[in-house]
Amino acid sequence: MKREINRQWRLAARPAGSVNPADFAWKEETLRPRVDGEVLVRNIYLSIDPTNRVWMNAAPSYLPALEIGEVMRGFAIGVVEESRHPEFSPGDLVQGILGWQEFSITGGATVAKVRRDLPVPLHAHFGLLGHIGLTAYFGLLEIGKPVAGDTLVVSAAAGAVGSLAGQIGKIKGCRVVGIAGSDEKCSWITGELGFDAAINYKKGSVIRGLMRHCSGGIDVFFDNVGGETLDAVLRFINLKARIVLCGMISQYDGDKPPSGPQYLANAINKRARLEGFIVADYYDRAQEAIDALAGWYNEGKIKYRVDVVDGLENAPDALARLFDGRNQGKLIVKISDEPAP
Amino acid sequence: MKREINRQWRLAARPAGSVNPADFAWKEETLRPRVDGEVLVRNIYLSIDPTNRVWMNAAPSYLPALEIGEVMRGFAIGVVEESRHPEFSPGDLVQGILGWQEFSITGGATVAKVRRDLPVPLHAHFGLLGHIGLTAYFGLLEIGKPVAGDTLVVSAAAGAVGSLAGQIGKIKGCRVVGIAGSDEKCSWITGELGFDAAINYKKGSVIRGLMRHCSGGIDVFFDNVGGETLDAVLRFINLKARIVLCGMISQYDGDKPPSGPQYLANAINKRARLEGFIVADYYDRAQEAIDALAGWYNEGKIKYRVDVVDGLENAPDALARLFDGRNQGKLIVKISDEPAP
Repeated sequence: MKREINRQWRLAARPAGSVNPADFAWKEETLRPRVDGEVLVRNIYLSIDPTNRVWMNAAPSYLPALEIGEVMRGFAIGVVEESRHPEFSPGDLVQGILGWQEFSITGGATVAKVRRDLPVPLHAHFGLLGHIGLTAYFGLLEIGKPVAGDTLVVSAAAGAVGSLAGQIGKIKGCRVVGIAGSDEKCSWITGELGFDAAINYKKGSVIRGLMRHCSGGIDVFFDNVGGETLDAVLRFINLKARIVLCGMISQYDGDKPPSGPQYLANAINKRARLEGFIVADYYDRAQEAIDALAGWYNEGKIKYRVDVVDGLENAPDALARLFDGRNQGKLIVKISDEPAP
Repeated sequence: MKREINRQWRLAARPAGSVNPADFAWKEETLRPRVDGEVLVRNIYLSIDPTNRVWMNAAPSYLPALEIGEVMRGFAIGVVEESRHPEFSPGDLVQGILGWQEFSITGGATVAKVRRDLPVPLHAHFGLLGHIGLTAYFGLLEIGKPVAGDTLVVSAAAGAVGSLAGQIGKIKGCRVVGIAGSDEKCSWITGELGFDAAINYKKGSVIRGLMRHCSGGIDVFFDNVGGETLDAVLRFINLKARIVLCGMISQYDGDKPPSGPQYLANAINKRARLEGFIVADYYDRAQEAIDALAGWYNEGKIKYRVDVVDGLENAPDALARLFDGRNQGKLIVKISDEPAP
């Protein structure tokens, strides 16, 4: 061990409305000694996800609520620097919920080794081949159940999960319409990613966009946004439509009470299914998704864009960027250098 | 034919808010001649259902919207008085969407013969053994998929569909909690029908009632109401909960914009499924439900209560009663006498 100081972001306050730098406290602490069964991980990449914001609330989500004063919860990839666990050795690359900090001391059972045999960047293991890719893969295929010829609508379509869900939809033969928040994003998804159409929700009415681009109705909706976007789509669903409730980013950040879909009654008329989805339920089938995603990526059928922010100190700002839509692709904070190969 | 005058209720106006007698126009017309393939039916019982209100709106539902001036749409049972269709003879008892009128002239393909071999009252064929019973049976079993030990919550639990759904839940081994709008209704469902608990939503908070009676969470929700009731239940759903979107009576009648569920995000946390349901999708399996329901009824496992309003002239008032909760059991309007057996 070269250094025993650990810099961290801890939860200082529950956000009132939008997430704010003052909701986090920067702390430097001395690393405690490790005990048997533990590993010391130097974190390299931190994943910035909408779920980070959910975890800051007082209410539990699919995980317990974070307490004020705890290290901010987050997915990360790191390298084992010291191991007191028989299955890990220094130099092993691992991932897990390692937190917003330079180093993590954690039980070996809470981290997973990163495979090095796949020709993808290291950070792809929590992105394309990690919880992001698995969310798009299982959410679309297992909940959305797209059939060739279906019209698939994806919200937050230029985001990390949405851009993959739309591309998987294209691979499965769907007509894919994306909803995104800038002309640049819309051009990217229809150009480089091959979506059939895009709707810039900041420039016009989503309803009018759907009327124009989904004149045959909507069979599958992969929803990362919730709120008004979900409501707009509910007006155009076809019989037996499937709505993947993957995220509701419009509802996470803000102090207005969330607005529910007023058109939910149309789910009765159309016998539609809305189903909540958490990727963790599919981790036992991760290999299937990783093989498929890595294959499509290497065949050029899937494009994957990352937006890397340098330095742990910028993590709170990176999270804020996610909510105002400034990010372009999967948001990552680089905490330290990758080890030499 | 003894008489050629047909009295009818026709749609006079789209309801603005609550349904109003002025939304209907009473009309007497001379019956037109019948052509080949048609039957003339004298209507006996008219079924008053929440869906009647939905059909009055300008927007199509699972059926096309009714036009202003058309005979009000409704399920009815009647007796064939004249047949120009080879499969029907005078005296046959039939059911179908025969409308709010004394006589219907309709193609033989639009009506179904009523079985007379089951020891149930004639009106049970559109109630217990008709669209009401089938809605409860298939909605609960196919969409709700209850398992013994599940906690099942039913809204509008003293209503025609809700009271059957709850009793079927008891037969399947669920703990059943009903939400209803009067102490009398609550006593009836916990007393005569065997529900485990009841919540009078007019006397206190549904949320507090659910906290008290569903402390282990909710596995299945059979929802006839929507709106705030659905929202309250969403707060207490268990992992993999199933929500049968059977009706949204709270949203049908009134001029306020419908309010969507603010707690829909909990469907993500709990990987819950909300699925719309229309009984017509299961008509090809009607016999299975009729056999089961008739069997349970005759074994005394299912109680079925009807509330009969006398006279077609009272049909608009009967529909209004459904929405202010004054009815006690399945609402029926008696239009004419049953033929002598």
